[in-house]
Amino acid sequence: MEIINRLESEVRGYVRSFPKVFTWAKGNRMKAEDGSEYLDFFSGAGALNYGHNDETMKAALIEYIQSDGVTHGLDMATAEKIRFLETFENVIMKPRGMEYKIQFPGPTGTNAVEAALKIARKVKKRPGVLFFTNGYHGMTLGALSVTGNASKRGGAGVAMPGTTPLPYCGYFGEDRDTADDLKALLENSSSGLEKPAAVIVETVQGEGGINVASFEWLKKIEQLCHEHDMLFIVDDIQAGVGRTGPFFSFEPAGIKPDIITVSKSLSGYGLPLAITMIRPDLDIWSPGEHNGTFRGFNHAFATAIAALETYWSDDQLEKETLRKSEIIKQRLNAMVDAQPSFEAEIRGRGFFIGMDCAQAELADEIAGECFENGLILETAGADDNVMKVMPPLISSDEDIAEGLDIIEKALATVLERHGLLNSAA
Amino acid sequence: MEIINRLESEVRGYVRSFPKVFTWAKGNRMKAEDGSEYLDFFSGAGALNYGHNDETMKAALIEYIQSDGVTHGLDMATAEKIRFLETFENVIMKPRGMEYKIQFPGPTGTNAVEAALKIARKVKKRPGVLFFTNGYHGMTLGALSVTGNASKRGGAGVAMPGTTPLPYCGYFGEDRDTADDLKALLENSSSGLEKPAAVIVETVQGEGGINVASFEWLKKIEQLCHEHDMLFIVDDIQAGVGRTGPFFSFEPAGIKPDIITVSKSLSGYGLPLAITMIRPDLDIWSPGEHNGTFRGFNHAFATAIAALETYWSDDQLEKETLRKSEIIKQRLNAMVDAQPSFEAEIRGRGFFIGMDCAQAELADEIAGECFENGLILETAGADDNVMKVMPPLISSDEDIAEGLDIIEKALATVLERHGLLNSAA
Amino acid sequence: MEIINRLESEVRGYVRSFPKVFTWAKGNRMKAEDGSEYLDFFSGAGALNYGHNDETMKAALIEYIQSDGVTHGLDMATAEKIRFLETFENVIMKPRGMEYKIQFPGPTGTNAVEAALKIARKVKKRPGVLFFTNGYHGMTLGALSVTGNASKRGGAGVAMPGTTPLPYCGYFGEDRDTADDLKALLENSSSGLEKPAAVIVETVQGEGGINVASFEWLKKIEQLCHEHDMLFIVDDIQAGVGRTGPFFSFEPAGIKPDIITVSKSLSGYGLPLAITMIRPDLDIWSPGEHNGTFRGFNHAFATAIAALETYWSDDQLEKETLRKSEIIKQRLNAMVDAQPSFEAEIRGRGFFIGMDCAQAELADEIAGECFENGLILETAGADDNVMKVMPPLISSDEDIAEGLDIIEKALATVLERHGLLNSAA
Amino acid sequence: MEIINRLESEVRGYVRSFPKVFTWAKGNRMKAEDGSEYLDFFSGAGALNYGHNDETMKAALIEYIQSDGVTHGLDMATAEKIRFLETFENVIMKPRGMEYKIQFPGPTGTNAVEAALKIARKVKKRPGVLFFTNGYHGMTLGALSVTGNASKRGGAGVAMPGTTPLPYCGYFGEDRDTADDLKALLENSSSGLEKPAAVIVETVQGEGGINVASFEWLKKIEQLCHEHDMLFIVDDIQAGVGRTGPFFSFEPAGIKPDIITVSKSLSGYGLPLAITMIRPDLDIWSPGEHNGTFRGFNHAFATAIAALETYWSDDQLEKETLRKSEIIKQRLNAMVDAQPSFEAEIRGRGFFIGMDCAQAELADEIAGECFENGLILETAGADDNVMKVMPPLISSDEDIAEGLDIIEKALATVLERHGLLNSAA
Repeated sequence: MEIINRLESEVRGYVRSFPKVFTWAKGNRMKAEDGSEYLDFFSGAGALNYGHNDETMKAALIEYIQSDGVTHGLDMATAEKIRFLETFENVIMKPRGMEYKIQFPGPTGTNAVEAALKIARKVKKRPGVLFFTNGYHGMTLGALSVTGNASKRGGAGVAMPGTTPLPYCGYFGEDRDTADDLKALLENSSSGLEKPAAVIVETVQGEGGINVASFEWLKKIEQLCHEHDMLFIVDDIQAGVGRTGPFFSFEPAGIKPDIITVSKSLSGYGLPLAITMIRPDLDIWSPGEHNGTFRGFNHAFATAIAALETYWSDDQLEKETLRKSEIIKQRLNAMVDAQPSFEAEIRGRGFFIGMDCAQAELADEIAGECFENGLILETAGADDNVMKVMPPLISSDEDIAEGLDIIEKALATVLERHGLLNSAA
Repeated sequence: MEIINRLESEVRGYVRSFPKVFTWAKGNRMKAEDGSEYLDFFSGAGALNYGHNDETMKAALIEYIQSDGVTHGLDMATAEKIRFLETFENVIMKPRGMEYKIQFPGPTGTNAVEAALKIARKVKKRPGVLFFTNGYHGMTLGALSVTGNASKRGGAGVAMPGTTPLPYCGYFGEDRDTADDLKALLENSSSGLEKPAAVIVETVQGEGGINVASFEWLKKIEQLCHEHDMLFIVDDIQAGVGRTGPFFSFEPAGIKPDIITVSKSLSGYGLPLAITMIRPDLDIWSPGEHNGTFRGFNHAFATAIAALETYWSDDQLEKETLRKSEIIKQRLNAMVDAQPSFEAEIRGRGFFIGMDCAQAELADEIAGECFENGLILETAGADDNVMKVMPPLISSDEDIAEGLDIIEKALATVLERHGLLNSAA
Repeated sequence: MEIINRLESEVRGYVRSFPKVFTWAKGNRMKAEDGSEYLDFFSGAGALNYGHNDETMKAALIEYIQSDGVTHGLDMATAEKIRFLETFENVIMKPRGMEYKIQFPGPTGTNAVEAALKIARKVKKRPGVLFFTNGYHGMTLGALSVTGNASKRGGAGVAMPGTTPLPYCGYFGEDRDTADDLKALLENSSSGLEKPAAVIVETVQGEGGINVASFEWLKKIEQLCHEHDMLFIVDDIQAGVGRTGPFFSFEPAGIKPDIITVSKSLSGYGLPLAITMIRPDLDIWSPGEHNGTFRGFNHAFATAIAALETYWSDDQLEKETLRKSEIIKQRLNAMVDAQPSFEAEIRGRGFFIGMDCAQAELADEIAGECFENGLILETAGADDNVMKVMPPLISSDEDIAEGLDIIEKALATVLERHGLLNSAA
Repeated sequence: MEIINRLESEVRGYVRSFPKVFTWAKGNRMKAEDGSEYLDFFSGAGALNYGHNDETMKAALIEYIQSDGVTHGLDMATAEKIRFLETFENVIMKPRGMEYKIQFPGPTGTNAVEAALKIARKVKKRPGVLFFTNGYHGMTLGALSVTGNASKRGGAGVAMPGTTPLPYCGYFGEDRDTADDLKALLENSSSGLEKPAAVIVETVQGEGGINVASFEWLKKIEQLCHEHDMLFIVDDIQAGVGRTGPFFSFEPAGIKPDIITVSKSLSGYGLPLAITMIRPDLDIWSPGEHNGTFRGFNHAFATAIAALETYWSDDQLEKETLRKSEIIKQRLNAMVDAQPSFEAEIRGRGFFIGMDCAQAELADEIAGECFENGLILETAGADDNVMKVMPPLISSDEDIAEGLDIIEKALATVLERHGLLNSAA
């Protein structure tokens, strides 16, 4: 670890929360150099929804490598890229009646967001983009300009014109519909809000603290987009690929985004891959107008094909995710209900669940205690006040129970330390 | 190919120049589905400096995968990441007397540039960044703001404040020193040029058309940075990792950049990996201030370690690159000298060589003719007027001769077609 | 008029609403070339609060001119400027316990706003400024960036970074306190709202449609400024100099702005003059950092001195304004109450009163009908839906009755034309 | 003076250079409260080209005031405005074969520049505007964005996107044609210079230090504008209205700007007035899109009419200005030639002449010495290194000789103080 402290930039983050040298990973288990073992309720921040080093994908990947298939191909055509497109079309798009063009904008989520913003502005010939409080879309300048976090925004060091934050669903409490507020701003020509090209939204905000938009609210936002000639962009990078149950998080809301960004678990194996899905009539890019070196990473196509075929040819994974989600939420709610001084709230959909602690510092402390006891999970939210409970989707009921037991114990330990424990519980 | 035309976004580019479905790649050879074979003088636009699917790296990669080493680790510590840092320090930095902190800013070059601009602005607390005519640094908004190409800039669709283009070395011809011009602008407090935080420069501009900065000019720019409290950023993404001979392209210029970006061939195998090297005292990042999902891609560490150990433990590769470079330039110059009506110029360093055609459209035509005859190379420059001659560094003298023969023949064919051929040559 | 139509830019506005060539003006009366006479309920959009060509000011002005006092002095010291500063201090600032430095930022309101924004940003070293829906602050780029009107903003033709619109008092209806909303955005570090340098507000929005902020809301905004280290700027250009009764419109709200802009009726005689009042400790300007040719227009000082001495040495004008205001509002409310199909609302303070017509087009029609009948008044609001009732403050009860009679008759005529007249009224 | 030091903002400037309380002004003479008298070689920075309180204009102004003509009329039609338009058309535009629409953009130069930039961007639908090193166009945000001075730009406190500085004529010395440089940037689609909407230029830079553009250079810039679809804006605010001899400074260059800004001496008497002249087919403003309170200041029309009729009905003033200009330049050159250690240069056209001192601090010292001896003149340039010699155009040969004598004596005094005096001279 010495070399990391000495040589890696101060910007490093997770290594500070999880100060171990990891050497092995499989499914929802990780091992460190010192022999310690961990259960993973973190899933690579959503990049490992199928767990680590899945055997089917691993076999496909090794086979591809051994055959000397093209590894790096920029955006040249390769047999593997074609297989990926066919699989994505057949397994994901066709059954859902979706029609989109697929852009490979670069290998990571922020590239997908940058491409989405560019094409939206190009189509509408206007610079404005609306985003939401507590939204997170990436760290490159365009994606950062639609991200709410003040510390991250401050990192830009330069003006980021053209974007405006608006209150997310529930921001002012449950009795206020912020979609109606937006409507009132859009309908008044003197509101100061220049007519935007697009709205970008997460259906569940991950980094923002597991804030869940209601389906009604999402529908209203979509409707406002139609009424005011704005494009409706759903950033499904963290919430997508099954994290909330269905492949796309917005499916149960009955909405049809104009542009969708997908990355993180898309390759299935943790390999860098991202796509921007564009409504066909909006695909007015000029050839090469947005390019990049690592757009067509064929290893990631190989594992993505295996992942899609294995997990999305039927609705088994989605059903199991939703079933187990109820178990997790019930137990977490029970923990919280038993501790009134703790003042925490459980929120989320699928395996995308948060425990929001009124006393922000407790969240980090509980997460730290979990790690001490062999469970990896992270915190999120404006003040790192939300513990994110994000097991791999492939976790068994037993694994989930094991993790929740650790959380329950950590919670008790921390509350006791602070004199907040209701020991009657 | 049908599905690519139907489903992939119109933004796709290389597949239009090289309309084949590639299935196999090894060293400097590629094969397509229809059985056709190609010699590669393109090297994945600099991402495949060691050729395709190098056996040593391949073995290391497969071994790593089979051992279930951590694949995706955000910026957690892994044994493989530590091995990469150790190898990079010992093989690259120490022998060159370099001291830098290493940031993993995301897996692709544009992420490295974004991080470089952010930290420069944070350190200097000023938004201004100077870049150069014909510069190319990436497609995300921050990197795009320092890229010269009008069509790509136009893709932004929003104002990109804070950056100013300046004439690159030789822009106004050889008798004009544009570093002196810059000096005159910086020294006049009413020049309208707000004091910049940094200058970003490529030592050889790749996408811009293989424009080569003189070492004297680079030294002057560095000197101006010191005199005017600006950071000196060298973007070595395309020119680095041996493309011009030495590992870093700026080594023979005797300059010490404050910040360096490296990507493309860093992983060696075509896997997405990028680093931003930061002078230690400038590393004032807050933890997590710049983050991202695919910062620590351990497969890429595995191949990068093998690449560094294999190719950079001695100066053999560098020497060979420089020796063969002379051969290439001599033959290209001879071709051009023999065809006065063609009015072309040969420029470049190492295996980063361009043939600049006064009649821009000829470049594309010759490149197309080469592809017909089994050679892959691309064009660059403001008007796609420059044929880029970029073989993998591992190409043998025979391979090089083979490729140059194809170029020579294609040149003759195209010139004859246009009535420009000097058949006496 | 031919030469105006032929030679003056299409941007001309009021001449279209009042298509006469005016030749004479006195008090609240104007005459046109064709002999027609008008009662003025417009007051030069607030620049003629004491009416036209006041005799006392006129005498002072002519005397000054005849003495060959300095006319134009940039910001050199002149005897008249000193007299102005003394008078403003003794008549206005001291009795109100105010301490401010006075900047002469250029001769018109928009200059005063530009200076206010500059000094606020300089003090706080942050670019952000919050403004409000339907706000109007001027047409130069900085002032325009805090103006709500979409058509006027569109005139900029360039990005105006750093400013964010927020809902004004009552924007979402009476039961919603938009100051609380702002508080919730400021207190959340991930709201996307970068910490602003300042908030700029009108206590009554003139161009925005006579929207009146409650004193409680203004106090809350001031309080938020204190809590979040933002400067509180009140733009009193249209609402100030007695228009709402007191000299400064914010006096009865019990607030103390950090920066105040004053112009329009400051010179009293319609001569261009503007000041930016700055809390002394914020006056960190460097000499000449903001300059301009017409900062010290001595004719305007001469008339301003006379105006301040004549009208503000006691509280007579303020009391009369408030007394007459009640008369106007009562009559206007009676008119509106009698016409339920008209669906209009009366709003305002002092002689700054609006009739907001649910059917926007009726406002213009009624104003046109008034002009036909010898009364000048204008419309405002996002859709020109509000008739502005703004007589000079010196108007007698009889003059006011005369003007209101014309409005009442015009209203009846227009409503009848549209089949909306309640003839029982 | 106490109240100015106590109450006026620190931003005050000229009062620091000329620390007297002025009470009287006539022609080119001013008197202060303490009885001291001054000869004026400053002319209100170009706002008093006809001197102070011209008798003809004064009579016209008093007559207008006494007749109770409309003083303030926003942009309503008044008889005086019509007379102004007729006079401007007949005396200025027709004899020069000019066709322009006249916009009254607000009463001061910066308003005229803001309007020029807005309409240019609106016409071309692009935000970019090119300006020149050492250019000065005003202090409101749009005008400031095309001003070179770093300290003044720094006052903005916010990003000013869309504008790019370029080297003015002679910036890199006489053997370099910066218009050719601009051409090379515009013709290269990868230069990083986004296609601009307009170029804004002063023919002689006043605040920038009396830098004189050659007519050939101006013609080339105009030509580039035509070739690259950019509008050509000449800011003639300081150089116009006879300052260089002809009414418009660009007349002898034989160019036809698309947009012209005029202010300062336009009213003739030092009253705030500005116009933006727009090529008729570019006048695509919507009514009211740019407005403002003091657009139609009728007092200024009254004096402007008198000024135009008196001074521009024939070419007497222009001829005299040019004749006397030669006298001034000869004497100044003689002074400078006699003092080789002083290393100064004389530049200028008409009564717009500068003495550029290699040792910047000497300029201020000489100007201070002049003031001590009864002569008012100011310094300009990036380092306040240029003494501006700008007598009113109505100055007699004797007055000019008197002023030059004072300069000569001040020069000797200061040089002697610094041990630089060549006493043989």
